[in-house]
Amino acid sequence: MKAEILCVGTEILLGDIVNTNAQFISKGLADLGIEVYHQSVVGDNPKRLLDELENGFKRSDIIITTGGLGPTPDDLTKETGAKFFNRELILDKNSLDDLKDHFSKMGRSYSKGNNIKQAYFPKESTIFPNPHGTAPGCAIEEKGKTLIILPGPPKEAAPMFTNYVIPLLEKYSSGIIKSKVLRICGIGEGTMAEMASDIINNNTNPTVAPYAKEEDTILRITAEASTENEALNLIKPVEIELRKKFGVNIYGEDDIKMEEVLGKMLIDKNYTISSAESCTGGLIAAKLINYPGISEVFKEGAVTYSNEAKINRLGVKKSTLDKYGAVSYETAKEMAEGIAKTSNTDIGISTTGIAGPDGGSPEKPVGLVYMGLYINGKTQVKKFQYFGSRDTIRRRAAMSALDWIRREIINI
Amino acid sequence: MKAEILCVGTEILLGDIVNTNAQFISKGLADLGIEVYHQSVVGDNPKRLLDELENGFKRSDIIITTGGLGPTPDDLTKETGAKFFNRELILDKNSLDDLKDHFSKMGRSYSKGNNIKQAYFPKESTIFPNPHGTAPGCAIEEKGKTLIILPGPPKEAAPMFTNYVIPLLEKYSSGIIKSKVLRICGIGEGTMAEMASDIINNNTNPTVAPYAKEEDTILRITAEASTENEALNLIKPVEIELRKKFGVNIYGEDDIKMEEVLGKMLIDKNYTISSAESCTGGLIAAKLINYPGISEVFKEGAVTYSNEAKINRLGVKKSTLDKYGAVSYETAKEMAEGIAKTSNTDIGISTTGIAGPDGGSPEKPVGLVYMGLYINGKTQVKKFQYFGSRDTIRRRAAMSALDWIRREIINI
Repeated sequence: MKAEILCVGTEILLGDIVNTNAQFISKGLADLGIEVYHQSVVGDNPKRLLDELENGFKRSDIIITTGGLGPTPDDLTKETGAKFFNRELILDKNSLDDLKDHFSKMGRSYSKGNNIKQAYFPKESTIFPNPHGTAPGCAIEEKGKTLIILPGPPKEAAPMFTNYVIPLLEKYSSGIIKSKVLRICGIGEGTMAEMASDIINNNTNPTVAPYAKEEDTILRITAEASTENEALNLIKPVEIELRKKFGVNIYGEDDIKMEEVLGKMLIDKNYTISSAESCTGGLIAAKLINYPGISEVFKEGAVTYSNEAKINRLGVKKSTLDKYGAVSYETAKEMAEGIAKTSNTDIGISTTGIAGPDGGSPEKPVGLVYMGLYINGKTQVKKFQYFGSRDTIRRRAAMSALDWIRREIINI
Repeated sequence: MKAEILCVGTEILLGDIVNTNAQFISKGLADLGIEVYHQSVVGDNPKRLLDELENGFKRSDIIITTGGLGPTPDDLTKETGAKFFNRELILDKNSLDDLKDHFSKMGRSYSKGNNIKQAYFPKESTIFPNPHGTAPGCAIEEKGKTLIILPGPPKEAAPMFTNYVIPLLEKYSSGIIKSKVLRICGIGEGTMAEMASDIINNNTNPTVAPYAKEEDTILRITAEASTENEALNLIKPVEIELRKKFGVNIYGEDDIKMEEVLGKMLIDKNYTISSAESCTGGLIAAKLINYPGISEVFKEGAVTYSNEAKINRLGVKKSTLDKYGAVSYETAKEMAEGIAKTSNTDIGISTTGIAGPDGGSPEKPVGLVYMGLYINGKTQVKKFQYFGSRDTIRRRAAMSALDWIRREIINI
């Protein structure tokens, strides 16, 4: 069973709004095991809309539209759907009552000329009430083709999809599609794909696909089966293989965040932590504090951007800054030790680097970051090189810092 | 001149990600006066991709694709584009050098088998470098048809579109659409729309539209004209009217960020600043440090999430914490004074609140935030109530803090 999504709206084509309808409908169909083959967006134009319906039903069995159900004369999705299936539009008494009721509650009278249009539907269609607005939706099923027509505003389309469309489409669901995501930090997409290439190539159900995300990379394992249990059983052995190959590089599953993984580890082991940030400027602290309950172990974060603060707050030696510079192995080391000491914590993490866009040199280019990690009574320093905007460099560096702490805790 | 956008990615069809590329590309084309006729999304499948190119070029003169430029064998957008235009793929020496350089800087060797694919392009295409990733883009122009191929990640596609695609397409722009955005903090969308309703209703060219953004609200003034100057002349008087109405509430224009506005003010006036954050957990510091050059005036940020750190680092009195609690007027005041004193700065800003999801009570609900501001020798405290997720509450609070400092500096 193949489906596609057809969104109608000049606002989307003008780039004034992001098309979130396509996303949640796609997600819902995937969960039903109905493959989404295509998404498209057209303006409020009946000719183009009809072309899309004709092309779409050549490729797919189900088309779900959103938008074009408003009261104005250029809202023509139902009219075009009726034309495609060669049906007339019929006034629906219940929808008209709802409409009158809706307007009287707002203390207005419904405009006969315009709004009454919203109570007309293609003959013999299934009508979906809309408690969140004035435009009900509908479905036409004929000769193996199903057209589902939903309103445009996500606040109206989403509950209608969940409450009426999913139950209607369940009969078409042959099985389910289940995904599991393994999250990896510190390995690029290309290298990851190469490392996993045999597993990727040798599997068709489940499939394994690598993706680069903003701060990490992921491997998505996707199985098709007739039940959830069966899908999970298909995923399991492939997951085990991948875990064997990537080991500690995998920091978590699905939508978990690095700070949740690390936050939980710190709390479980009762390791206290503090941070001294220069180039990351508070992002490590901000990430950690994203984890509720972190206050038990996160004692203090210092954002020591100036040399003055590095000296006064962390006890970095002026001679170190003079001799090696703020962005150096030595400064990173003294920062990590300084924050752990003054905050009296088990772990101290530091960053100092050049986030750009200016301030780089051939020896110390933009994106160079030194990190210090005081843990288990010892201090280590690592040198990283990042690429991208100031923001990207800072966010990736903060992510690496958390990942490094995670790896060290596992090694203890 | 008609354009369409074709996004390639199974992730979009699965509903795993929202298609933001289609939005910003549509917006950019609208600004150029190029009409976006159609948007579509297909999976990583060369046959369907080719079908889309064939259908698309029947409707439109320009197709912009995103995605499918990765290093893996199922990334086939360039290959399919080359096939459509009947061109072979040629290794681009410069792109290969960039690729090698990128990998060697990261201390890794580029994987010949996979990544080298990213340095091949359809013969005689214009290549767009990608400083934010490993996949350059390209453009093929032939017989009135233009195919533009961009990478999938928005962080890579967006700057490439702005820096290379817009200049390339300017020759196809017939008239222009010019927008100016006025950014407002501290007033909701509804109130803003009401305040501006007469200006919104009385103008058709330019139009004025209010939008709610994640951390602020905006008024967008949009004019259509045949030249940029003409458009700017249409915008100017409406902007003056809006500025008269909103005054100091408008903090900036277009894409400027609050931290840039404030960062510039602080540096211009040479006011030094420090921050003591509890619930915002480093976000104020992180925002400020986003502004290059801020190190001149931003002396130190303290993330004092625990009571211990509030006492030891900021000198908040234990009796204050015991009597009024960490989230209180009194604690916020002592935090702001404490950080300004120990960091020896002109300004000290503090936050303490309940970011949730737990920890709220009827007297101190989730979203309650006290902020202290030491400035010009005096300390003020304000109470804010935010709504939304932990992340939203923290980000909005950080934004309010910066806005408050901005307003106070204007008043000095």
